[in-house]
Amino acid sequence: MTIQIRIERTTAPKPRPQASELGFGKYFTDHMFIVDYAEGKGWHDARIVPYQPITLDPAAKVFHYGQTIFEGLKAYRTETGQIALFRPDMNMKRLNRSNDRMSIPAIEEELGLEALRQLVLIDKDWIPDAPETSLYVRPFVIATEAALGVSPSKQYQFIIIMSPVGSYYAEGIKPVSIYVESEYVRAVAGGVGHVKTAGNYAAGLKAQEGATEQGCAQVLWLDGVHRKYVEEVGSMNVFFRLGNKIVTPALTGSLLSGITRDSVIHLLRHWGLEVEERLISIDEVTQAQKDGSLKEMFGTGTAAVISPVGSLYWQGEKLTIGDGSTGELTLRVYETMTGIQTGRIEDPFGWRVALD
Amino acid sequence: MTIQIRIERTTAPKPRPQASELGFGKYFTDHMFIVDYAEGKGWHDARIVPYQPITLDPAAKVFHYGQTIFEGLKAYRTETGQIALFRPDMNMKRLNRSNDRMSIPAIEEELGLEALRQLVLIDKDWIPDAPETSLYVRPFVIATEAALGVSPSKQYQFIIIMSPVGSYYAEGIKPVSIYVESEYVRAVAGGVGHVKTAGNYAAGLKAQEGATEQGCAQVLWLDGVHRKYVEEVGSMNVFFRLGNKIVTPALTGSLLSGITRDSVIHLLRHWGLEVEERLISIDEVTQAQKDGSLKEMFGTGTAAVISPVGSLYWQGEKLTIGDGSTGELTLRVYETMTGIQTGRIEDPFGWRVALD
Ligand SMILES: Cc1ncc(COP(=O)(O)O)c(C=O)c1O
Ligand SMILES: Cc1ncc(COP(=O)(O)O)c(C=O)c1O
Repeated sequence: MTIQIRIERTTAPKPRPQASELGFGKYFTDHMFIVDYAEGKGWHDARIVPYQPITLDPAAKVFHYGQTIFEGLKAYRTETGQIALFRPDMNMKRLNRSNDRMSIPAIEEELGLEALRQLVLIDKDWIPDAPETSLYVRPFVIATEAALGVSPSKQYQFIIIMSPVGSYYAEGIKPVSIYVESEYVRAVAGGVGHVKTAGNYAAGLKAQEGATEQGCAQVLWLDGVHRKYVEEVGSMNVFFRLGNKIVTPALTGSLLSGITRDSVIHLLRHWGLEVEERLISIDEVTQAQKDGSLKEMFGTGTAAVISPVGSLYWQGEKLTIGDGSTGELTLRVYETMTGIQTGRIEDPFGWRVALD
Repeated sequence: MTIQIRIERTTAPKPRPQASELGFGKYFTDHMFIVDYAEGKGWHDARIVPYQPITLDPAAKVFHYGQTIFEGLKAYRTETGQIALFRPDMNMKRLNRSNDRMSIPAIEEELGLEALRQLVLIDKDWIPDAPETSLYVRPFVIATEAALGVSPSKQYQFIIIMSPVGSYYAEGIKPVSIYVESEYVRAVAGGVGHVKTAGNYAAGLKAQEGATEQGCAQVLWLDGVHRKYVEEVGSMNVFFRLGNKIVTPALTGSLLSGITRDSVIHLLRHWGLEVEERLISIDEVTQAQKDGSLKEMFGTGTAAVISPVGSLYWQGEKLTIGDGSTGELTLRVYETMTGIQTGRIEDPFGWRVALD
């Protein structure tokens, strides 16, 4: 397949924000990618156009039935001035798993990757270069058919937008406190928690409000069936260091298969460490905290890369993990992951994909 | 509060479809209602305008995190020429329960009801008058803030659109066959299955595909924890007549509190029948089918009002309910409900709300 992407460049480039103003997902670059889908015609008219509003019929299915999926990855300017993505093929594969679950037609992986490459390069001056900043890339698909029957849409748009994002840890990597959620449930096996679809996130807002009220940064989700197995932390996967073993929840169908998770598992095993993917109950975690075997805990995800957990709030008690500071393994994983991503260190795995 | 709704009438009314072309949710009337929300300002600028596209930033939160809810109700032209809604206050109350769960600010019930009244009256010529046709009314809220952080939006729109819909039973009320779903799960307690939010519906499409492949019209959902208690049928609540008792699943937190469900329970009790709201397992249902005590089964919802179930497809077996035709109680409920809605019979409950 030769991939044709029509390009219409902006004639009115926007002023770029200062590194200090960036935050997360507040500013958007000059261009966006769009490709349309129509039943019978397939995906067609791939184009890069000036960043612009989307115009939809108020009956578009995305508004009513939530048929939509998304991805998230980052483009970095490496130490040597190259522009790179981190494992973008994994994002395209997951995007198609999400599409399949949400009854959205698949998108050719090569089209997605080529769109990412061309779009990032066109807006490459938007990649911030202060330490630990990056360009966040957001591919998403929305169902655009204007019809109120509950059935798969006959029309879609696959869109990619990009946002320069600031350092997650402006003052250095710092542990967060986490609220163990016992009332709300994020997802259940048989549902859609294992894919990246919009509804999963709105469903979690209420729990997040509760966590914030308790002074916590994020929620630790427990499974919806037994209400005891640990699933994810906020929008991140989660790892525990129990003695010298590392444990992370198995992919049981209700949690997302994070690309950072996969990379961290590889990395730890590459270092010769033992990693178990299995069920881990909140009782096991709190017991290990009490007997001192829970040494470290951290979340993994594209936004923060690694997020150390300093304490857990559970049944009215605050449980400090280790001495409450960032654990040594956590820090090593963080340094190595961000090092590989930004080209500060060698990439033995072929994860960093240079675009130019 | 006095409610001010600005009105801008269309200058280009659309041709209206023939009754035979209507279907469900394919055509939309000449006008729509919109009211905006901004943090600090509240809901403001309520207006009725010509039906028109919505223009949103591609980073609008509804596309990414699914913060959105909706309602569905019908306007009827009664036998005496009046225009009426069915229990619209119940829709506004449920809309606010949905808003609360999805971290969307509440909408004053009076504003919603007044918007419904004025919009339906402005487009009253769109209410079809063939038997069992109606004007389907779709209020919905979308999160419009352009920002990729996972947090409640600071901006929303509450919109109402309307669509003339054909008779659900053009050839008379007719039983459907139902596929009992054992792989996919619609919702779980602690999640969002008890409210009307978009993500619930996209999540159900895959199961519906499977049902269609088996020649079934809809899915019967089982609970996500035990995978055995009956929850809903498609986008309807469900009732079983077991001997002379009527059983419907209790509102355990994972199923929608249907307004038709509530009305049917009232009606049956008004008739002196015994109605139980409780857990009912698929084993109990299939057992009752086998021993002959399962006399009737039907779904309830705004679209079809009452949908008789003729057979269940479960573990490779087709189980016929009663003699496979519409049961006598089912038919009586259907005739009475539609009679009250359309003004064909008296309304002892005050459910029919005349708008003019
Ligand atoms: C629910 C959820 N879990 C985990 C992750 C981590 O996945 P990844 O490492 O691919 O970013 C994400 C996405 O960032 C997520 O949304
Ligand atoms: C999931 C679901 N269950 C049940 C119903 C029935 O609710 P109501 O009777 O209020 O239309 C609906 C809406 O129509 C629904 O979407």
